[in-house]
Amino acid sequence: MSGSIYGTLFRASTWGESHGAGVGVVVDGCPAGLSLSEGDIQKYLDRRKPGQNRFATPRKEDDTVEILSGVFEGRTTGTPISMMVYNTSQRSKDYSEIASYYRPGHADYTYDEKYGFRDYRGGGRSSGRETIGRVAAGAVACKLLQEIGVEIVTYSRKIGGIEISEDRFDKEEILRNPVCMPDAQAAEQVEELLEEKLREHDSVGGVIECRICGLPSGIGEPVFEKLSANLGKAILSIGAVKGFELGDGFAAADSFGSANNDSFYCEEDGRIKKHSNHGGGIYGGISDGSEIVFRAAVKPTPSIAKLQKTVNKSGQNIEISIKGRHDPIIVPRAVVVVESMAALALADMLLLGMSARLDAVVAFFRDRM
Amino acid sequence: MSGSIYGTLFRASTWGESHGAGVGVVVDGCPAGLSLSEGDIQKYLDRRKPGQNRFATPRKEDDTVEILSGVFEGRTTGTPISMMVYNTSQRSKDYSEIASYYRPGHADYTYDEKYGFRDYRGGGRSSGRETIGRVAAGAVACKLLQEIGVEIVTYSRKIGGIEISEDRFDKEEILRNPVCMPDAQAAEQVEELLEEKLREHDSVGGVIECRICGLPSGIGEPVFEKLSANLGKAILSIGAVKGFELGDGFAAADSFGSANNDSFYCEEDGRIKKHSNHGGGIYGGISDGSEIVFRAAVKPTPSIAKLQKTVNKSGQNIEISIKGRHDPIIVPRAVVVVESMAALALADMLLLGMSARLDAVVAFFRDRM
Amino acid sequence: MSGSIYGTLFRASTWGESHGAGVGVVVDGCPAGLSLSEGDIQKYLDRRKPGQNRFATPRKEDDTVEILSGVFEGRTTGTPISMMVYNTSQRSKDYSEIASYYRPGHADYTYDEKYGFRDYRGGGRSSGRETIGRVAAGAVACKLLQEIGVEIVTYSRKIGGIEISEDRFDKEEILRNPVCMPDAQAAEQVEELLEEKLREHDSVGGVIECRICGLPSGIGEPVFEKLSANLGKAILSIGAVKGFELGDGFAAADSFGSANNDSFYCEEDGRIKKHSNHGGGIYGGISDGSEIVFRAAVKPTPSIAKLQKTVNKSGQNIEISIKGRHDPIIVPRAVVVVESMAALALADMLLLGMSARLDAVVAFFRDRM
Amino acid sequence: MSGSIYGTLFRASTWGESHGAGVGVVVDGCPAGLSLSEGDIQKYLDRRKPGQNRFATPRKEDDTVEILSGVFEGRTTGTPISMMVYNTSQRSKDYSEIASYYRPGHADYTYDEKYGFRDYRGGGRSSGRETIGRVAAGAVACKLLQEIGVEIVTYSRKIGGIEISEDRFDKEEILRNPVCMPDAQAAEQVEELLEEKLREHDSVGGVIECRICGLPSGIGEPVFEKLSANLGKAILSIGAVKGFELGDGFAAADSFGSANNDSFYCEEDGRIKKHSNHGGGIYGGISDGSEIVFRAAVKPTPSIAKLQKTVNKSGQNIEISIKGRHDPIIVPRAVVVVESMAALALADMLLLGMSARLDAVVAFFRDRM
Repeated sequence: MSGSIYGTLFRASTWGESHGAGVGVVVDGCPAGLSLSEGDIQKYLDRRKPGQNRFATPRKEDDTVEILSGVFEGRTTGTPISMMVYNTSQRSKDYSEIASYYRPGHADYTYDEKYGFRDYRGGGRSSGRETIGRVAAGAVACKLLQEIGVEIVTYSRKIGGIEISEDRFDKEEILRNPVCMPDAQAAEQVEELLEEKLREHDSVGGVIECRICGLPSGIGEPVFEKLSANLGKAILSIGAVKGFELGDGFAAADSFGSANNDSFYCEEDGRIKKHSNHGGGIYGGISDGSEIVFRAAVKPTPSIAKLQKTVNKSGQNIEISIKGRHDPIIVPRAVVVVESMAALALADMLLLGMSARLDAVVAFFRDRM
Repeated sequence: MSGSIYGTLFRASTWGESHGAGVGVVVDGCPAGLSLSEGDIQKYLDRRKPGQNRFATPRKEDDTVEILSGVFEGRTTGTPISMMVYNTSQRSKDYSEIASYYRPGHADYTYDEKYGFRDYRGGGRSSGRETIGRVAAGAVACKLLQEIGVEIVTYSRKIGGIEISEDRFDKEEILRNPVCMPDAQAAEQVEELLEEKLREHDSVGGVIECRICGLPSGIGEPVFEKLSANLGKAILSIGAVKGFELGDGFAAADSFGSANNDSFYCEEDGRIKKHSNHGGGIYGGISDGSEIVFRAAVKPTPSIAKLQKTVNKSGQNIEISIKGRHDPIIVPRAVVVVESMAALALADMLLLGMSARLDAVVAFFRDRM
Repeated sequence: MSGSIYGTLFRASTWGESHGAGVGVVVDGCPAGLSLSEGDIQKYLDRRKPGQNRFATPRKEDDTVEILSGVFEGRTTGTPISMMVYNTSQRSKDYSEIASYYRPGHADYTYDEKYGFRDYRGGGRSSGRETIGRVAAGAVACKLLQEIGVEIVTYSRKIGGIEISEDRFDKEEILRNPVCMPDAQAAEQVEELLEEKLREHDSVGGVIECRICGLPSGIGEPVFEKLSANLGKAILSIGAVKGFELGDGFAAADSFGSANNDSFYCEEDGRIKKHSNHGGGIYGGISDGSEIVFRAAVKPTPSIAKLQKTVNKSGQNIEISIKGRHDPIIVPRAVVVVESMAALALADMLLLGMSARLDAVVAFFRDRM
Repeated sequence: MSGSIYGTLFRASTWGESHGAGVGVVVDGCPAGLSLSEGDIQKYLDRRKPGQNRFATPRKEDDTVEILSGVFEGRTTGTPISMMVYNTSQRSKDYSEIASYYRPGHADYTYDEKYGFRDYRGGGRSSGRETIGRVAAGAVACKLLQEIGVEIVTYSRKIGGIEISEDRFDKEEILRNPVCMPDAQAAEQVEELLEEKLREHDSVGGVIECRICGLPSGIGEPVFEKLSANLGKAILSIGAVKGFELGDGFAAADSFGSANNDSFYCEEDGRIKKHSNHGGGIYGGISDGSEIVFRAAVKPTPSIAKLQKTVNKSGQNIEISIKGRHDPIIVPRAVVVVESMAALALADMLLLGMSARLDAVVAFFRDRM
């Protein structure tokens, strides 16, 4: 089955492996007339680029995007936008050993089980490089969302157990420190922890948080296509993500109805607001017009230099130490991937939501004729 | 957009509101030749039936299912299986007041925002009765999974902060106590808590855990259609679910690579196993043949008799106390809903996974000709 | 795989066999606020009802539709509309013989090959009764299209080789004669032919034509989701349809570019028109705002009383004469089925077309906020 | 909406315009282990390449394909196969005039109506170059089909009214003459006609026929996903195709039941065969194991040098003569496009058909474990 295509109306079809010719994505269904340049995409790709500081892999990857179709005179034409990044920094020899055994925490074993063999160079399709396609598509989705007035803010909420403080929350700080935290003090503590883990040849995990402002109410569909379910699927499709929660999430499971319900009130101007947002801005799977908040649990980088047990293809129990250029932490580079997947889900659900009401549909076509 | 249809190959199309003629589902894509009777479905529906004990709403609902199509001489024909339950216990007058205001924690407000009006009787389509369609379809999926050798066990892991002990885990206990816990002692404590919350006119939430055995390796698709992502979407599409985690989930975010990686070893007979299962049986989105473990966070019942603030349709700030017949806890009745959604996701992904390898595809058609 | 669900945004999920409990359909994705009653649906179902004249099967089927969900206080709620017709006139014994052999021109053999067995009573799912679900869903789609200003006119263009004359075209005549022709004189000739064929225990085929007015320009998507391709699939999914053509269709294959091109001109008021409509109103798969014209070739009824060769399940070559109540012509009853499928395709493509332009999308959401 | 993605399990996502950087396709869902090289693809692309003879546009286009992903050590990996052809022969200045008016018979007007503007260079996305993506994907599908034993033969059946004779049918002849006819004598007559039409600055249309051998019985799904409906949609999605018919098609509409029914007989060895194949090998939408036959009506090339009426963007009625390099006939180059689309439809339907029977599904997974 085809697993590399996301969405229904706003679609992203990604391709490419770690050590093939390149990686890319075809975005189909983007409305015509959106101003779009390679710079718009590059800005997002640069946020996931490795080699930017001492906690990210020292591989130098330029990851320069080319737009191959779908943009004419600076605007999207409504037809597929093909984008591509050539692979330039592959050193296949680094990975030759991997062919013979299964790395713990990776997809080596399951790919072999599924397909009978695998492109073992750098993890092939299961490599983190696959996310380049997501981010390029997400950049287009973000531009579309901005036109509608939707803003997404994503950051590391917790790394290696060190959590940000709401009191010190500073949005500007996110892009300033190497761990993408909106809290300079927490970021500093995290950096110290990462130094320690680097020395121990180990890795850490963390939690990414995403806040979405300006989303109209009424987005999301009842039952199976809830906005929450689609955001969840989008985020859980990212390689290292092991959990997803909306609003209070797992904490809500320990709460009581009287504490967890978000009660409504009416403002002077007649607008309906809530006293709290435990629900994360989605009720019955449909946005209520307030801020959407969700979190993703990211596991520690599975590639570690520390000695690990595993088996090789001859069925022998062996011990390995994974060499090569690996991040001691995935979280900071995954922040823009989470943002991109959220943007893809939102763009799709927004367009899907346009046909909910007869009066709006009739008005739409009457205005066109 | 159509939000009430689940799946790609194994599809469930659900319909019905709390106070309409009935609720039902059409299952399309079930392989032909599966032995199926109304008794097979009823068994699952009875697990979500209200009125079974003092912690569930005292509404008496028979919820007797009828199979209207797709079964001939006791076996599925490969064509759509239409199943229906008539609504018999609605008391619309109970809900007349609801029409005028928005219940906190419910979808009243968002449905109005999306559609311009709503069927306010008992929550209409956003009512828990909607899950009857899911469970009827899930029962068919479960029968199919059993034929393939897949078994699903689902239970309450935690309610109101009280968690089961792994030491006292007893599968048989799940269907024995009213809170669906595999630990009689924890169940007893929960019952005491629920008595207390009933007196306080409040409600509690909890965590449901699901374990899947016998799933072949190689199920799930790379990138966007990971098994984890599809399980996540299926579970997050259930009304009260606010979080989903696979394996160690959010705890993995606080762990280290050396502790979180599941290392492989080879058994005497050559079979490859893992020393641990922090990953929950899915790597790169693909099953590894071991047990799949996931959890869902369920929020407290939003309908509580306790006084709550809200607004009415005239824009006035009011206080309400929700009367009627409501459960102080959703979790036990949601257990079978979680199991049903997991079954739907697994059935679909299994069938989708049949075309992964050329040799298997060629052998399949050669055997048929 | 699931084959009984049509559409992407406006979806119809049909179910039911000739001799099961009933037949029905779930329509999901219809915009909220559409006025809808059982009478609206019944009007369309009555057009396909048998037993209305001597050329249609004398089976008396009431085919009374019930709406089971999705309509509240006379308007659609935006959630699934479940509709059902109980089977009341089945005489299973009529069909007992069929179980043992394969009727030529029917799906008996292919269903057995696909599924290993079949519900042989009246053709089961492959029976013409399956189209009740299409027509009920099509009636909803037609109501939606009318609100947008789209009108569909469908009729028999040719039966048994006798074709209507454009000069005598009278729309009102379509519902007046038993063969649904817009030409009273041709209808009379056809009636004579049918009398003859009834005497000969034979059957005839014909061509159905459909004209669509008021469809906005810009509907249909490039490449694979052309409006023409979607109309074609919808029509070719009807059991007895063996061909589909748009505009001049197969005649265009014999024409020359200079004759076949539809040249444009500008009216006094600035509106762009065409001198001809050989293309049938669709260019590059997208509607141009003019009339859409297509035709469907319908094969002769395969169930005939005349002696036919076939094989039985014991592998013997036998001769059969199909008894029971069968129409000598499918075409007139198929007219409303063609109209319904066209309506389903158009409704879906219209809603899908709402997100083509950024300016319209932005305006849509700005107006809502 | 996204219109450039075909299929459910075997998917092709095409992109690119006539005068952009290139055109390409991402094939997702191809089973792993299929031997695949650029040469396999090039062979099919060469059949649609222009500049091969005097009836095809003299543009020299190399159309050399590159495989960018999804193939490792000569075999498909089960992950997306990205293929690309760079545009090398664009002369944008040729098309500069087109920006100001609407070419009759083209999609210029409808693209402007849909999207508000268009990439007017060479027709942009609506150009025939779009079919390169289809053919590259179709080549992969054909390789897969060959492994299963399915063979497709496609050819020009009729051009400019000149039809092949069944008596002179010679499969080898198809690739030998410039008009892809399996009848050398008819081909010669067609060549004379084309010379004449070239002199008259006019163009002709024709009919393409496709025969599929070796397809297993049981392929295709009931109701909406009939094999015939999916083949029809695939073929009708090709730009110049105006009609589709299966088996006897429109001729069946003029036939009688007794003549049109394909009666069964049993061979000595017990195999069930038919005395005729008026139905084209598909009953109830499902293949019966015999030859599938369908035809596509292709309109005359709309780009002609002959003077034509049209309007310009200033709303003036003007006369134009389309210059540049255009084919007087589309049919021969469209033959491989029809074959490719048939292959895409068949590959998808074959994979979709694997889950029809419980016994086959159970055996499939039992064999794997």
